[in-house]
Amino acid sequence: MKTIINPPRETWASLCKRPVFEMTGLETTVREILSKVKAGGDKALYEFSEKYDGALPKDLRVSLPEIDAAGEVVPENLRNSIAVAKANIEKFHSAQIIDEPVIETSSGVRCWRKSVPVGSAGLYIPGGTAPLFSTVLMLAIPARIAGCKNIVLCTPPDRHGNINPLILYTAMIAGVTNIFRVGGAQAIAAMAYGTQTIPAVDKIFGPGNQYVTKAKELVQLDGIPIDMPAGPSEVLVIADETADPSFVAADLLSQAEHGPDSQVVMVTDNPEMIPRVKKQIDEQINQLPRKEIALKSLENSLMVQLKSPEECMDFSNLYAPEHLIISVSDPAALAGKVQNAGSVFLGKYSCESAGDYATGTNHTLPTNGFARSYSGISTDSFMKKISFQEVTPAGLNIIGPPVELMAAAEQLNGHKNAITIRLKSLKNV
Amino acid sequence: MKTIINPPRETWASLCKRPVFEMTGLETTVREILSKVKAGGDKALYEFSEKYDGALPKDLRVSLPEIDAAGEVVPENLRNSIAVAKANIEKFHSAQIIDEPVIETSSGVRCWRKSVPVGSAGLYIPGGTAPLFSTVLMLAIPARIAGCKNIVLCTPPDRHGNINPLILYTAMIAGVTNIFRVGGAQAIAAMAYGTQTIPAVDKIFGPGNQYVTKAKELVQLDGIPIDMPAGPSEVLVIADETADPSFVAADLLSQAEHGPDSQVVMVTDNPEMIPRVKKQIDEQINQLPRKEIALKSLENSLMVQLKSPEECMDFSNLYAPEHLIISVSDPAALAGKVQNAGSVFLGKYSCESAGDYATGTNHTLPTNGFARSYSGISTDSFMKKISFQEVTPAGLNIIGPPVELMAAAEQLNGHKNAITIRLKSLKNV
Repeated sequence: MKTIINPPRETWASLCKRPVFEMTGLETTVREILSKVKAGGDKALYEFSEKYDGALPKDLRVSLPEIDAAGEVVPENLRNSIAVAKANIEKFHSAQIIDEPVIETSSGVRCWRKSVPVGSAGLYIPGGTAPLFSTVLMLAIPARIAGCKNIVLCTPPDRHGNINPLILYTAMIAGVTNIFRVGGAQAIAAMAYGTQTIPAVDKIFGPGNQYVTKAKELVQLDGIPIDMPAGPSEVLVIADETADPSFVAADLLSQAEHGPDSQVVMVTDNPEMIPRVKKQIDEQINQLPRKEIALKSLENSLMVQLKSPEECMDFSNLYAPEHLIISVSDPAALAGKVQNAGSVFLGKYSCESAGDYATGTNHTLPTNGFARSYSGISTDSFMKKISFQEVTPAGLNIIGPPVELMAAAEQLNGHKNAITIRLKSLKNV
Repeated sequence: MKTIINPPRETWASLCKRPVFEMTGLETTVREILSKVKAGGDKALYEFSEKYDGALPKDLRVSLPEIDAAGEVVPENLRNSIAVAKANIEKFHSAQIIDEPVIETSSGVRCWRKSVPVGSAGLYIPGGTAPLFSTVLMLAIPARIAGCKNIVLCTPPDRHGNINPLILYTAMIAGVTNIFRVGGAQAIAAMAYGTQTIPAVDKIFGPGNQYVTKAKELVQLDGIPIDMPAGPSEVLVIADETADPSFVAADLLSQAEHGPDSQVVMVTDNPEMIPRVKKQIDEQINQLPRKEIALKSLENSLMVQLKSPEECMDFSNLYAPEHLIISVSDPAALAGKVQNAGSVFLGKYSCESAGDYATGTNHTLPTNGFARSYSGISTDSFMKKISFQEVTPAGLNIIGPPVELMAAAEQLNGHKNAITIRLKSLKNV
């Protein structure tokens, strides 16, 4: 980890730049996958499954008996743990449905907004060695709470054509049974354009590797909305003298183990904190099965010493971290100054991994500095807000004449006439 | 206008397809403009201004005296009309700031979300013959209510390098004074990447021609967020026997005059409505200065007769119109069935042009079927929601053990350890 003591402010922007990992030829490969799926449908999906997953699944759709059977192999203590996470995620995401008031803007002019679910949501869950069933909960629960009628889930099969039972089990308890064994850019293509078996959806959600991310970018250009742009995961910890170096080290490592491109940052105003945390990292990292990944991630990472907690927060706001842990004596005071972050963890017992699974907040968050303008996934992500207005004759008598004048000034006489013809008819009543 | 009587449901999807107008070479041209501005900064902007606007502005930034002077040439009755619109837009958009409750998901685990403004917003206002000062209000007012610290407005100059005084006046009364005379794709590039004079912004908003739209798409791929994808404007009117054919015709024409690529649709269950509205259109269109534009737009447009108001609403939900006017005997009942629309107008006196200017709702709305998953612009568009969580030791004792199990099941032992190390320290207290 790079250590920087009291960097001058004019250097902060360059410190906050994320490491860039670019694959050459990625866009060409993904464009080809998208067009093959668009043209070939299911047939193309089977071909890509053989090529990329080494699998020849009998059926793209996972059958209901297969889904039901999955629960039986999940141990009871894990089922109970998942139930705790599910209940908390449901509580927090249900509270996000808020009825907005009707506003009478002028007498006789009533305006309001109504949240209406997106008709169909496509969820992508990556495969690989670790089954990310927590992400199933984080996507499927708000989709169901929002009221999406059709929820489709795509995830890649293993070499035998099977889906990890934990993915199937969590999907089932979250109410999702339209599950398809297809992964990568081809899964995004299938949900964007539809195939014989997989229905096209109204919006696509979920994390993935660079192929998946690029596919999401490209289908968005084709008019299919996606949740948000993606990038490697990251955490920033603000630690003052009251922080526990072993906790901070554990938090940095929990992020570093995600992938070699993850970035972890500690910012502190305490001169002793950096050496203490480094010592803890050196000790703890040896216990981690994913040590090699964590070591690579730490190479891209930063420890920065600044002059005060407020300066640490200024740095964090410039960095705009996906996860921000505030481990200081008065975390609430500092939390009030957060301008840019995905999800914020207050105090030394609020570790990121608690929020990754079970506090109830969503763990699908903006990375790569996107927290400056994007929100994490929430129930809102599965809905759109439609505005409504009702103008009575009395209301039209008030706002009609101003609209006529403004429309004429914009040289839109058709707009003006739609008012004039109504005002005239009211005079004749 | 095409007239279709009782089309079978399986043909609806093709009826709902928007006409496509594609410019060849557009992407290449726009990519070149973006890279020239990125490399050349202000110098490139002056060159493009000379090339595309035929203007050689002395200064990109509009000076404060210039802005102040604009108000003096706006007639008093128009200033008063703008004040009515501004007050209503402010009322409706202020009500969109809602404090969300803190949720205790498990005992000792508190979660909440907070809306925080995007730091800087870039507003694009098209030029051309008609000064779209109403769009200035629709973008600048919610940006200011959200609390954006920096609001930048770009709009193209006329041949003399001047900006229409109505644009300057509405910007000023909406609190925007960072105004730059630059238009087209080059304006989007300037706000995305920054130049010597024009600061880079966190998010870009506003309508524009195909160059502007393509530029917004491309900078989004570079990580600069935009409000929403764009397309030609459109209206769908549902009319039953209680609708006034002259009102319906005026509403269709008010949309048709926007541009030759606008689409207007009427859906009715009344066999007499189509001929009546057509007759009214033929009469009213002759009064319109923009008759030629409206005629071209009507060529792409539709009149559909269906069997019931409910069937009309089904058609509308499939079409997902930007504007939906419900002119039926019980508009509220039908409004409850709206699934996909940008903004909805209830009853015969609620014409679209009222909402375009002054009901208080926003007129920047999803077109081209994007209303299936996008919302129109609101105060939310200028904010992001950050999630917060605070886990007490008691809370960690509840959710910690489940998180340990789930993290282990996802093979993320670093995540597990961040919990374990804290639980151990609590036992030792």
